[in-house]
Amino acid sequence: MNERSAVPPSARTTIRRLPELANHDRATFYSILDESYVCHIAFSANNDTHCIPTAHWRKDDYLYIHGSNGSRLIKSLAAGVQTSVAITLLDGLVLAKSAFSHSMNYRSAVIYGHFEIVQGSAEKLEALDVFMDKIAMGRKEEARRGNSKEIAATNILRISLTEVAVKISDSGPSDKDEDIDLPVWAGILPMKMTRGSPVHNENNKDVIIPDYVKTWAD
Amino acid sequence: MNERSAVPPSARTTIRRLPELANHDRATFYSILDESYVCHIAFSANNDTHCIPTAHWRKDDYLYIHGSNGSRLIKSLAAGVQTSVAITLLDGLVLAKSAFSHSMNYRSAVIYGHFEIVQGSAEKLEALDVFMDKIAMGRKEEARRGNSKEIAATNILRISLTEVAVKISDSGPSDKDEDIDLPVWAGILPMKMTRGSPVHNENNKDVIIPDYVKTWAD
Repeated sequence: MNERSAVPPSARTTIRRLPELANHDRATFYSILDESYVCHIAFSANNDTHCIPTAHWRKDDYLYIHGSNGSRLIKSLAAGVQTSVAITLLDGLVLAKSAFSHSMNYRSAVIYGHFEIVQGSAEKLEALDVFMDKIAMGRKEEARRGNSKEIAATNILRISLTEVAVKISDSGPSDKDEDIDLPVWAGILPMKMTRGSPVHNENNKDVIIPDYVKTWAD
Repeated sequence: MNERSAVPPSARTTIRRLPELANHDRATFYSILDESYVCHIAFSANNDTHCIPTAHWRKDDYLYIHGSNGSRLIKSLAAGVQTSVAITLLDGLVLAKSAFSHSMNYRSAVIYGHFEIVQGSAEKLEALDVFMDKIAMGRKEEARRGNSKEIAATNILRISLTEVAVKISDSGPSDKDEDIDLPVWAGILPMKMTRGSPVHNENNKDVIIPDYVKTWAD
Protein backbone atom coordinates (compact mmCIF):
# COMPACT_ATOMS: atom_id res chain seq x y z
CA MET A 1 0.00 0.00 0.00
CA ASN A 2 1.21 3.48 -0.86
CA GLU A 3 2.29 5.19 2.37
CA ARG A 4 0.85 8.53 1.29
CA SER A 5 -2.49 6.99 0.50
CA ALA A 6 -2.76 4.87 3.59
CA VAL A 7 -5.14 5.70 6.42
CA PRO A 8 -3.64 3.70 9.29
CA PRO A 9 -6.20 2.78 11.97
CA SER A 10 -6.06 4.11 15.53
CA ALA A 11 -7.42 2.28 18.57
CA ARG A 12 -10.74 4.04 17.92
CA THR A 13 -10.91 3.30 14.22
CA THR A 14 -9.73 -0.29 14.09
CA ILE A 15 -12.65 -2.14 12.59
CA ARG A 16 -13.57 -5.04 14.83
CA ARG A 17 -16.84 -6.10 13.24
CA LEU A 18 -16.27 -7.77 9.85
CA PRO A 19 -12.65 -6.54 9.60
CA GLU A 20 -12.45 -7.90 6.06
CA LEU A 21 -14.61 -4.94 5.02
CA ALA A 22 -12.09 -2.39 6.29
CA ASN A 23 -10.62 -0.32 3.52
CA HIS A 24 -7.54 1.80 3.98
CA ASP A 25 -7.17 3.42 0.61
CA ARG A 26 -7.25 7.21 0.75
CA ALA A 27 -8.60 7.68 -2.79
CA THR A 28 -11.57 5.46 -1.97
CA PHE A 29 -12.12 7.32 1.28
CA TYR A 30 -12.09 10.70 -0.47
CA SER A 31 -14.46 9.48 -3.19
CA ILE A 32 -17.02 8.68 -0.46
CA LEU A 33 -16.73 12.22 0.93
CA ASP A 34 -16.86 13.81 -2.52
CA GLU A 35 -19.82 11.80 -3.79
CA SER A 36 -21.96 12.52 -0.73
CA TYR A 37 -23.49 15.82 0.31
CA VAL A 38 -24.62 15.20 3.86
CA CYS A 39 -22.67 13.96 6.88
CA HIS A 40 -23.90 13.18 10.38
CA ILE A 41 -21.99 14.69 13.29
CA ALA A 42 -22.01 13.24 16.82
CA PHE A 43 -21.03 15.52 19.68
CA SER A 44 -21.86 16.15 23.32
CA ALA A 45 -23.30 19.40 24.65
CA ASN A 46 -25.03 20.12 27.95
CA ASN A 47 -24.69 16.49 29.04
CA ASP A 48 -26.53 15.24 25.96
CA THR A 49 -25.16 13.39 22.96
CA HIS A 50 -26.45 14.73 19.65
CA CYS A 51 -26.43 13.45 16.08
CA ILE A 52 -26.98 16.27 13.59
CA PRO A 53 -26.95 16.14 9.78
CA THR A 54 -25.26 18.90 7.82
CA ALA A 55 -23.78 19.56 4.39
CA HIS A 56 -20.08 18.88 3.97
CA TRP A 57 -17.36 19.24 1.41
CA ARG A 58 -13.68 18.31 1.19
CA LYS A 59 -10.61 20.40 0.41
CA ASP A 60 -7.28 18.63 0.46
CA ASP A 61 -7.06 16.60 3.66
CA TYR A 62 -9.89 18.32 5.55
CA LEU A 63 -13.64 17.94 5.71
CA TYR A 64 -15.48 21.27 5.89
CA ILE A 65 -18.87 22.27 7.22
CA HIS A 66 -20.52 25.66 7.64
CA GLY A 67 -23.27 27.21 9.67
CA SER A 68 -24.48 30.33 11.39
CA ASN A 69 -23.30 31.73 14.70
CA GLY A 70 -26.49 30.74 16.49
CA SER A 71 -26.39 27.01 15.79
CA ARG A 72 -25.77 24.65 18.72
CA LEU A 73 -23.82 22.35 16.43
CA ILE A 74 -21.44 25.10 15.32
CA LYS A 75 -21.05 26.57 18.82
CA SER A 76 -20.28 23.17 20.33
CA LEU A 77 -17.81 22.16 17.63
CA ALA A 78 -16.13 25.57 17.65
CA ALA A 79 -15.58 25.13 21.40
CA GLY A 80 -13.40 22.14 20.54
CA VAL A 81 -15.52 19.22 21.71
CA GLN A 82 -14.41 15.76 20.51
CA THR A 83 -16.53 14.64 17.60
CA SER A 84 -17.23 11.82 15.22
CA VAL A 85 -18.47 12.44 11.69
CA ALA A 86 -20.07 9.66 9.65
CA ILE A 87 -20.86 9.52 5.94
CA THR A 88 -22.68 6.57 4.42
CA LEU A 89 -23.61 5.76 0.83
CA LEU A 90 -26.10 2.94 0.44
CA ASP A 91 -25.51 0.85 -2.71
CA GLY A 92 -28.04 -1.92 -2.39
CA LEU A 93 -29.87 -4.58 -0.45
CA VAL A 94 -28.29 -8.03 -0.44
CA LEU A 95 -30.85 -10.83 -0.33
CA ALA A 96 -29.65 -14.24 0.79
CA LYS A 97 -31.26 -17.67 0.94
CA SER A 98 -31.60 -17.41 4.73
CA ALA A 99 -33.04 -14.47 6.65
CA PHE A 100 -29.95 -14.30 8.86
CA SER A 101 -27.58 -13.78 5.91
CA HIS A 102 -29.34 -10.74 4.44
CA SER A 103 -27.17 -7.63 4.40
CA MET A 104 -26.55 -4.35 2.61
CA ASN A 105 -23.92 -3.02 0.28
CA TYR A 106 -22.57 0.36 1.36
CA ARG A 107 -19.55 2.60 1.57
CA SER A 108 -19.03 4.39 4.87
CA ALA A 109 -16.47 6.60 6.53
CA VAL A 110 -16.31 7.54 10.21
CA ILE A 111 -13.95 10.38 11.11
CA TYR A 112 -12.75 11.16 14.67
CA GLY A 113 -11.21 14.36 15.92
CA HIS A 114 -11.92 18.00 16.66
CA PHE A 115 -13.14 20.73 14.34
CA GLU A 116 -11.22 23.98 14.06
CA ILE A 117 -12.56 27.35 12.95
CA VAL A 118 -11.40 28.66 9.58
CA GLN A 119 -10.26 32.21 10.29
CA GLY A 120 -9.98 35.15 7.89
CA SER A 121 -12.30 36.29 5.11
CA ALA A 122 -9.94 35.20 2.32
CA GLU A 123 -9.58 31.72 3.79
CA LYS A 124 -13.34 31.45 4.31
CA LEU A 125 -14.09 32.57 0.75
CA GLU A 126 -11.57 30.09 -0.62
CA ALA A 127 -13.22 27.26 1.29
CA LEU A 128 -16.70 28.33 0.16
CA ASP A 129 -15.49 28.38 -3.45
CA VAL A 130 -14.61 24.71 -3.16
CA PHE A 131 -18.10 24.03 -1.80
CA MET A 132 -19.60 25.89 -4.76
CA ASP A 133 -17.43 23.87 -7.16
CA LYS A 134 -18.86 20.71 -5.61
CA ILE A 135 -22.42 21.94 -6.14
CA ALA A 136 -21.67 22.84 -9.76
CA MET A 137 -18.33 23.45 -11.40
CA GLY A 138 -18.22 27.01 -12.73
CA ARG A 139 -21.07 28.26 -10.58
CA LYS A 140 -18.82 30.32 -8.32
CA GLU A 141 -18.16 32.62 -11.30
CA GLU A 142 -21.89 33.13 -11.87
CA ALA A 143 -23.65 33.48 -8.52
CA ARG A 144 -23.15 36.69 -6.58
CA ARG A 145 -20.27 36.11 -4.23
CA GLY A 146 -20.74 36.54 -0.51
CA ASN A 147 -20.16 40.08 0.74
CA SER A 148 -18.25 40.89 3.91
CA LYS A 149 -21.39 40.88 6.04
CA GLU A 150 -22.48 37.49 4.74
CA ILE A 151 -19.02 35.99 5.13
CA ALA A 152 -18.82 37.31 8.69
CA ALA A 153 -22.16 35.68 9.52
CA THR A 154 -20.98 32.29 8.24
CA ASN A 155 -18.85 30.05 10.38
CA ILE A 156 -16.66 27.60 8.54
CA LEU A 157 -15.17 24.70 10.42
CA ARG A 158 -12.88 21.93 9.29
CA ILE A 159 -11.67 18.61 10.65
CA SER A 160 -8.44 16.88 9.68
CA LEU A 161 -8.92 13.60 7.83
CA THR A 162 -6.31 11.71 9.82
CA GLU A 163 -8.24 9.37 12.13
CA VAL A 164 -10.81 7.51 10.09
CA ALA A 165 -12.48 4.14 9.60
CA VAL A 166 -13.58 3.34 6.06
CA LYS A 167 -15.78 0.32 5.52
CA ILE A 168 -16.99 -1.02 2.19
CA SER A 169 -19.37 -3.86 1.47
CA ASP A 170 -19.86 -4.58 -2.23
CA SER A 171 -20.52 -8.25 -2.74
CA GLY A 172 -23.35 -10.68 -3.31
CA PRO A 173 -24.97 -12.77 -0.58
CA SER A 174 -22.89 -15.20 1.39
CA ASP A 175 -25.00 -18.17 2.41
CA LYS A 176 -24.02 -21.17 4.44
CA ASP A 177 -23.33 -24.34 2.45
CA GLU A 178 -26.47 -26.04 3.68
CA ASP A 179 -28.62 -23.14 2.44
CA ILE A 180 -27.18 -22.71 -1.04
CA ASP A 181 -29.61 -25.03 -2.80
CA LEU A 182 -32.76 -23.63 -1.20
CA PRO A 183 -35.30 -22.55 -3.86
CA VAL A 184 -35.12 -18.90 -2.77
CA TRP A 185 -34.09 -15.99 -4.97
CA ALA A 186 -30.73 -14.53 -3.92
CA GLY A 187 -28.92 -11.54 -5.30
CA ILE A 188 -28.47 -7.80 -5.03
CA LEU A 189 -31.20 -5.16 -5.29
CA PRO A 190 -29.07 -2.11 -6.21
CA MET A 191 -29.82 1.42 -5.03
CA LYS A 192 -28.25 4.68 -6.08
CA MET A 193 -28.71 8.39 -5.78
CA THR A 194 -29.88 9.79 -9.12
CA ARG A 195 -30.53 13.27 -10.42
CA GLY A 196 -33.96 14.44 -11.56
CA SER A 197 -35.07 17.13 -14.00
CA PRO A 198 -34.13 20.64 -12.82
CA VAL A 199 -36.92 22.86 -11.49
CA HIS A 200 -36.47 26.32 -12.96
CA ASN A 201 -37.17 29.32 -10.79
CA GLU A 202 -39.67 31.81 -12.18
CA ASN A 203 -37.17 34.70 -12.11
CA ASN A 204 -34.92 33.08 -14.73
CA LYS A 205 -36.17 35.04 -17.75
CA ASP A 206 -33.32 35.99 -20.07
CA VAL A 207 -30.93 33.84 -18.05
CA ILE A 208 -28.69 31.53 -20.06
CA ILE A 209 -29.14 28.01 -18.70
CA PRO A 210 -25.72 26.66 -17.67
CA ASP A 211 -24.52 23.32 -18.98
CA TYR A 212 -24.48 21.81 -15.48
CA VAL A 213 -28.25 22.43 -15.34
CA LYS A 214 -28.89 21.13 -18.86
CA THR A 215 -26.93 17.95 -18.19
CA TRP A 216 -27.98 17.49 -14.57
CA ALA A 217 -30.66 14.81 -14.94
CA ASP A 218 -29.56 11.18 -15.28
CA MET B 1 -53.23 19.12 14.84
CA ASN B 2 -54.36 15.65 15.81
CA GLU B 3 -53.17 14.97 19.37
CA ARG B 4 -52.34 11.34 18.55
CA SER B 5 -50.27 12.35 15.56
CA ALA B 6 -48.46 15.21 17.24
CA VAL B 7 -44.79 14.99 18.15
CA PRO B 8 -44.50 17.76 20.73
CA PRO B 9 -40.97 19.11 21.07
CA SER B 10 -38.90 18.76 24.21
CA ALA B 11 -36.18 21.19 25.32
CA ARG B 12 -33.72 19.07 23.32
CA THR B 13 -35.79 18.82 20.17
CA THR B 14 -37.15 22.35 19.87
CA ILE B 15 -35.81 23.51 16.52
CA ARG B 16 -34.01 26.80 16.99
CA ARG B 17 -32.38 27.13 13.58
CA LEU B 18 -34.95 27.94 10.87
CA PRO B 19 -37.93 26.98 13.09
CA GLU B 20 -40.26 27.42 10.10
CA LEU B 21 -38.87 24.12 8.79
CA ALA B 22 -39.95 22.20 11.89
CA ASN B 23 -42.57 19.61 11.11
CA HIS B 24 -44.60 17.95 13.81
CA ASP B 25 -46.73 15.53 11.84
CA ARG B 26 -46.25 11.93 12.88
CA ALA B 27 -47.19 10.46 9.49
CA THR B 28 -44.49 12.56 7.81
CA PHE B 29 -42.00 11.57 10.48
CA TYR B 30 -42.75 7.87 10.01
CA SER B 31 -42.53 8.14 6.22
CA ILE B 32 -38.93 9.40 6.63
CA LEU B 33 -38.05 6.38 8.78
CA ASP B 34 -39.82 3.94 6.46
CA GLU B 35 -38.33 5.31 3.23
CA SER B 36 -34.76 5.22 4.53
CA TYR B 37 -32.64 2.16 5.27
CA VAL B 38 -29.71 3.60 7.21
CA CYS B 39 -29.64 5.73 10.35
CA HIS B 40 -26.68 7.27 12.15
CA ILE B 41 -26.40 6.71 15.89
CA ALA B 42 -24.46 9.00 18.23
CA PHE B 43 -23.38 7.62 21.60
CA SER B 44 -20.55 7.88 24.08
CA ALA B 45 -18.33 4.97 25.11
CA ASN B 46 -14.93 4.95 26.82
CA ASN B 47 -14.87 8.76 26.93
CA ASP B 48 -15.29 9.04 23.15
CA THR B 49 -18.30 10.17 21.18
CA HIS B 50 -19.09 7.91 18.22
CA CYS B 51 -21.28 8.25 15.15
CA ILE B 52 -22.06 4.86 13.62
CA PRO B 53 -24.31 4.01 10.67
CA THR B 54 -26.58 1.00 10.85
CA ALA B 55 -29.71 -0.40 9.22
CA HIS B 56 -33.02 0.46 10.87
CA TRP B 57 -36.69 -0.33 10.57
CA ARG B 58 -39.85 0.81 12.32
CA LYS B 59 -42.61 -1.15 14.03
CA ASP B 60 -45.44 0.85 15.55
CA ASP B 61 -43.91 3.66 17.64
CA TYR B 62 -40.39 2.24 17.90
CA LEU B 63 -37.29 2.34 15.73
CA TYR B 64 -35.42 -0.98 15.65
CA ILE B 65 -31.82 -1.90 14.94
CA HIS B 66 -29.96 -5.18 15.18
CA GLY B 67 -26.42 -6.39 15.54
CA SER B 68 -24.19 -9.05 16.98
CA ASN B 69 -23.11 -9.45 20.60
CA GLY B 70 -19.58 -8.32 19.87
CA SER B 71 -20.36 -4.90 18.43
CA ARG B 72 -19.35 -1.81 20.43
CA LEU B 73 -22.47 -0.02 19.20
CA ILE B 74 -24.80 -2.76 20.43
CA LYS B 75 -22.95 -3.25 23.72
CA SER B 76 -22.98 0.48 24.48
CA LEU B 77 -26.62 0.97 23.58
CA ALA B 78 -27.68 -2.18 25.44
CA ALA B 79 -25.99 -0.74 28.54
CA GLY B 80 -28.50 2.10 28.38
CA VAL B 81 -26.34 5.03 27.30
CA GLN B 82 -28.23 8.15 26.13
CA THR B 83 -28.31 8.31 22.37
CA SER B 84 -29.38 10.37 19.41
CA VAL B 85 -30.37 8.77 16.12
CA ALA B 86 -30.51 10.80 12.91
CA ILE B 87 -32.03 9.91 9.56
CA THR B 88 -31.70 12.21 6.57
CA LEU B 89 -33.10 12.00 3.04
CA LEU B 90 -31.54 14.41 0.56
CA ASP B 91 -34.04 15.65 -2.04
CA GLY B 92 -32.04 18.20 -3.98
CA LEU B 93 -29.64 21.11 -4.24
CA VAL B 94 -31.21 24.56 -4.18
CA LEU B 95 -29.32 27.06 -6.32
CA ALA B 96 -29.91 30.74 -5.61
CA LYS B 97 -28.79 33.95 -7.30
CA SER B 98 -26.29 34.63 -4.51
CA ALA B 99 -23.77 32.16 -3.12
CA PHE B 100 -24.96 32.82 0.42
CA SER B 101 -28.55 31.77 -0.35
CA HIS B 102 -27.74 28.32 -1.73
CA SER B 103 -29.25 25.50 0.29
CA MET B 104 -30.52 21.93 0.11
CA ASN B 105 -33.91 20.28 0.20
CA TYR B 106 -34.07 17.42 2.67
CA ARG B 107 -36.22 15.57 5.17
CA SER B 108 -34.56 14.73 8.48
CA ALA B 109 -35.48 13.24 11.82
CA VAL B 110 -33.40 13.29 14.99
CA ILE B 111 -34.53 10.98 17.80
CA TYR B 112 -33.37 11.23 21.41
CA GLY B 113 -33.61 8.60 24.11
CA HIS B 114 -32.30 5.22 25.18
CA PHE B 115 -32.43 1.90 23.39
CA GLU B 116 -33.86 -1.13 25.12
CA ILE B 117 -33.15 -4.79 24.35
CA VAL B 118 -35.95 -6.81 22.77
CA GLN B 119 -36.16 -9.96 24.90
CA GLY B 120 -37.56 -13.37 23.96
CA SER B 121 -37.19 -15.37 20.75
CA ALA B 122 -40.82 -14.84 19.68
CA GLU B 123 -40.55 -11.07 20.15
CA LYS B 124 -37.22 -11.00 18.27
CA LEU B 125 -38.60 -13.06 15.38
CA GLU B 126 -41.64 -10.80 15.16
CA ALA B 127 -39.41 -7.72 14.95
CA LEU B 128 -37.18 -9.35 12.32
CA ASP B 129 -40.26 -10.23 10.26
CA VAL B 130 -41.11 -6.53 10.05
CA PHE B 131 -37.54 -5.82 8.90
CA MET B 132 -37.89 -8.50 6.21
CA ASP B 133 -41.22 -6.98 5.11
CA LYS B 134 -39.42 -3.67 4.66
CA ILE B 135 -36.75 -5.27 2.49
CA ALA B 136 -39.39 -7.02 0.36
CA MET B 137 -43.00 -7.75 1.20
CA GLY B 138 -43.56 -11.50 1.15
CA ARG B 139 -39.90 -12.40 1.47
CA LYS B 140 -40.22 -13.62 5.06
CA GLU B 141 -42.31 -16.55 3.72
CA GLU B 142 -39.56 -17.48 1.23
CA ALA B 143 -36.16 -17.11 2.89
CA ARG B 144 -35.18 -19.66 5.50
CA ARG B 145 -36.19 -18.27 8.87
CA GLY B 146 -33.62 -17.75 11.58
CA ASN B 147 -33.08 -20.80 13.76
CA SER B 148 -32.71 -20.60 17.52
CA LYS B 149 -28.92 -20.32 17.36
CA GLU B 150 -29.07 -17.47 14.83
CA ILE B 151 -31.78 -15.66 16.79
CA ALA B 152 -29.75 -15.99 19.98
CA ALA B 153 -26.70 -14.50 18.25
CA THR B 154 -28.68 -11.46 17.08
CA ASN B 155 -29.35 -8.57 19.39
CA ILE B 156 -32.40 -6.50 18.61
CA LEU B 157 -32.74 -3.09 20.20
CA ARG B 158 -35.50 -0.53 19.94
CA ILE B 159 -35.95 3.12 20.84
CA SER B 160 -39.27 4.79 21.55
CA LEU B 161 -40.23 7.45 18.99
CA THR B 162 -41.35 9.99 21.56
CA GLU B 163 -38.64 12.68 21.63
CA VAL B 164 -37.91 13.74 18.07
CA ALA B 165 -37.14 16.73 15.89
CA VAL B 166 -38.37 16.51 12.30
CA LYS B 167 -37.17 19.10 9.83
CA ILE B 168 -38.23 19.44 6.21
CA SER B 169 -36.96 21.78 3.54
CA ASP B 170 -38.79 21.48 0.22
CA SER B 171 -38.85 24.84 -1.49
CA GLY B 172 -37.10 26.80 -4.20
CA PRO B 173 -34.37 29.34 -3.56
CA SER B 174 -35.12 32.37 -1.45
CA ASP B 175 -33.05 35.31 -2.67
CA LYS B 176 -32.92 38.81 -1.31
CA ASP B 177 -34.92 41.40 -3.24
CA GLU B 178 -31.80 43.09 -4.55
CA ASP B 179 -30.53 39.80 -6.02
CA ILE B 180 -33.69 38.61 -7.75
CA ASP B 181 -32.95 40.19 -11.13
CA LEU B 182 -29.36 39.00 -11.37
CA PRO B 183 -28.75 37.07 -14.62
CA VAL B 184 -27.96 33.85 -12.74
CA TRP B 185 -29.82 30.58 -13.09
CA ALA B 186 -31.80 29.73 -9.95
CA GLY B 187 -33.82 26.64 -9.18
CA ILE B 188 -33.72 23.15 -7.77
CA LEU B 189 -31.45 20.30 -8.89
CA PRO B 190 -33.45 17.31 -7.58
CA MET B 191 -31.87 14.15 -6.21
CA LYS B 192 -33.46 10.90 -5.25
CA MET B 193 -32.62 7.34 -4.36
CA THR B 194 -33.48 5.05 -7.25
CA ARG B 195 -33.43 1.30 -7.74
CA GLY B 196 -31.23 -0.40 -10.32
CA SER B 197 -31.52 -3.71 -12.16
CA PRO B 198 -31.29 -6.70 -9.82
CA VAL B 199 -28.09 -8.74 -9.84
CA HIS B 200 -29.00 -12.42 -9.85
CA ASN B 201 -26.91 -14.81 -7.81
CA GLU B 202 -25.49 -17.78 -9.70
CA ASN B 203 -27.23 -20.34 -7.47
CA ASN B 204 -30.71 -19.25 -8.58
CA LYS B 205 -31.31 -22.02 -11.13
CA ASP B 206 -34.91 -23.27 -11.02
CA VAL B 207 -35.83 -20.48 -8.62
CA ILE B 208 -39.00 -18.58 -9.47
CA ILE B 209 -38.14 -14.89 -9.58
CA PRO B 210 -40.41 -13.06 -7.12
CA ASP B 211 -42.43 -10.05 -8.28
CA TYR B 212 -40.53 -7.71 -5.94
CA VAL B 213 -37.37 -8.58 -7.87
CA LYS B 214 -39.02 -8.30 -11.31
CA THR B 215 -40.46 -4.89 -10.45
CA TRP B 216 -37.52 -3.60 -8.39
CA ALA B 217 -35.81 -1.35 -10.91
CA ASP B 218 -37.22 2.15 -11.46
